[in-house]
Amino acid sequence: MPAAAEASPATPFGDRLAAAVAARESQIVLGLDPDPSKLWPDAAGASAELVAALAGAERAAGLGAGDGARGPRLEAAAAVLGHCLALIDAAGPACVAAKPQLACFERLGFPGWLALEAAVARAHENGLLVIADGKRGDVPTSARAYAQGLLDGVGTPYGASGGLHADAVTLNPLLGGDALAPFEGAAGRAGAGLFVLVRTSNPGAADLLDAELAGGGPLWERIAGLVAGAGTPGPRSGLTEVGAVCGATVPQHLARMRELMPCAPFLLPGVGAQGGAVGDLAPAFGPGRAAGLVTASRSISDAHAQAGGTPAHAARAEAERLRAAAWALA
Amino acid sequence: MPAAAEASPATPFGDRLAAAVAARESQIVLGLDPDPSKLWPDAAGASAELVAALAGAERAAGLGAGDGARGPRLEAAAAVLGHCLALIDAAGPACVAAKPQLACFERLGFPGWLALEAAVARAHENGLLVIADGKRGDVPTSARAYAQGLLDGVGTPYGASGGLHADAVTLNPLLGGDALAPFEGAAGRAGAGLFVLVRTSNPGAADLLDAELAGGGPLWERIAGLVAGAGTPGPRSGLTEVGAVCGATVPQHLARMRELMPCAPFLLPGVGAQGGAVGDLAPAFGPGRAAGLVTASRSISDAHAQAGGTPAHAARAEAERLRAAAWALA
Repeated sequence: MPAAAEASPATPFGDRLAAAVAARESQIVLGLDPDPSKLWPDAAGASAELVAALAGAERAAGLGAGDGARGPRLEAAAAVLGHCLALIDAAGPACVAAKPQLACFERLGFPGWLALEAAVARAHENGLLVIADGKRGDVPTSARAYAQGLLDGVGTPYGASGGLHADAVTLNPLLGGDALAPFEGAAGRAGAGLFVLVRTSNPGAADLLDAELAGGGPLWERIAGLVAGAGTPGPRSGLTEVGAVCGATVPQHLARMRELMPCAPFLLPGVGAQGGAVGDLAPAFGPGRAAGLVTASRSISDAHAQAGGTPAHAARAEAERLRAAAWALA
Repeated sequence: MPAAAEASPATPFGDRLAAAVAARESQIVLGLDPDPSKLWPDAAGASAELVAALAGAERAAGLGAGDGARGPRLEAAAAVLGHCLALIDAAGPACVAAKPQLACFERLGFPGWLALEAAVARAHENGLLVIADGKRGDVPTSARAYAQGLLDGVGTPYGASGGLHADAVTLNPLLGGDALAPFEGAAGRAGAGLFVLVRTSNPGAADLLDAELAGGGPLWERIAGLVAGAGTPGPRSGLTEVGAVCGATVPQHLARMRELMPCAPFLLPGVGAQGGAVGDLAPAFGPGRAAGLVTASRSISDAHAQAGGTPAHAARAEAERLRAAAWALA
């Protein structure tokens, strides 16, 4: 694998993304934020075989005895996996990518991480890109370890250990450029993308991201400068492998963000449950349709609560509705 | 458990920390940053039983077939666990806490997460507090999920799923106060602590954390203000449950940090391999010995490379040396 990778460098992420958006005629990213108490009823029957195997692994690691809280998480993780597979199969055809929120898997411990890996594999089988949404950020040594885990894997005395094989990750830039650099190296090798938090969609983002700097402009504009300076435009698409997370609930910033980061793909969370609307996102799509990815999670997975019908049917219909609304903007 | 927790509120983290430091006569935090290529040779024999059980779980989740990179990570994770257990047993008696770097476990996927859980359990058995070093930070909904996973667990239709049961976590504050709030709630319920990144030890921290604000002072001082405003001093110790991560390679900032955050425990990474020295840290200990925790990872686990002898013996000796040096400062 390393030899082959050296012989034929990976296609840059911007070009991969543009090709995928064109092929699937979709800019919609299916968020996977599984809540154990809101799983699709038909999909959430926990696999007894998986639960038993997880319990075996726990025992082999010396865990499990005498902790009553360990059993339920095995069943919950198996049910989460069933839910995610059904959701990917149902809504995936209307989407270009899946975006697992790592927190929602991590909260179930190692069984949740196994469910994450299996959901990522299913998304790839269905032709979706995978954006691992973990907002990781740490000093360079630790950032390298995160990049290995999510993107390009790590060498071990037992052979190469593959990572999650995500096509892109979300990153927190607070620790500065040298903390992003290990991800840039891994992204280049793997043809992967990086979506750096620039301005998030939560009200508290005003506390620091909107802080006015002595040189003028808010902190998020300085982060936008880091993003704009980091990537290399793909030769076919003109889009860089370093993108930005721009909350869809602050559309008043999008035009300025596009000005500061003319070649960066934008990941736009906050549509639907968080209050953003697709129609407000037009400035993101200036450089082309693949320059703006619209993520939706609960508005798709919980669509049946509003629309009725089966969860799978309602999810597909809502994803198709979002696809058409976004596609019409560009 | 919930009923009992309501009946007797958890002891606040600041008081737990102060009691632990006094009882163990140590302010040293044993960093667990396992590198699969630098494991202690005698400890790293992978458990065949654990490897087989992990492979079974992988198969039951529909993974594993046809991916040559999956096998090595099972062996590597089992070896990482053996290494961590030996390191905890060897150096733990000189320490007050263990600090697993989540990136180093996460890079091995779900087998790495199982190793993390088993290492945390061993640290607790040995009387150590556990600081889960993941620098997590996300919008409130996702921050809640991270807090559930690391601290207080989550309710599921199958029963309550326990989290990692860490005693404290490290957090990234970029997304602002409302993104820290879910962790504060969980910390209060669990008697856990939060160490918020204020000024890290990497050179790139100057990019954003040192950015001068229009109102005066660098960004990290505003973050220090968030920390100082968030916690409640424990009635016995006077230390809050919301602490700060302050890189030991920037000791010139410590006095100012202590001024801005008079009641916050400081987590001080960067001693040893990253170039910091214990003797420079005195300002951290102003409010008392438990107000400054000195973390060391590679300088302990790799001590035999300098000092000779068995890895276990050299690690214990280096941890004891650090303990004595820090204890002498206060």
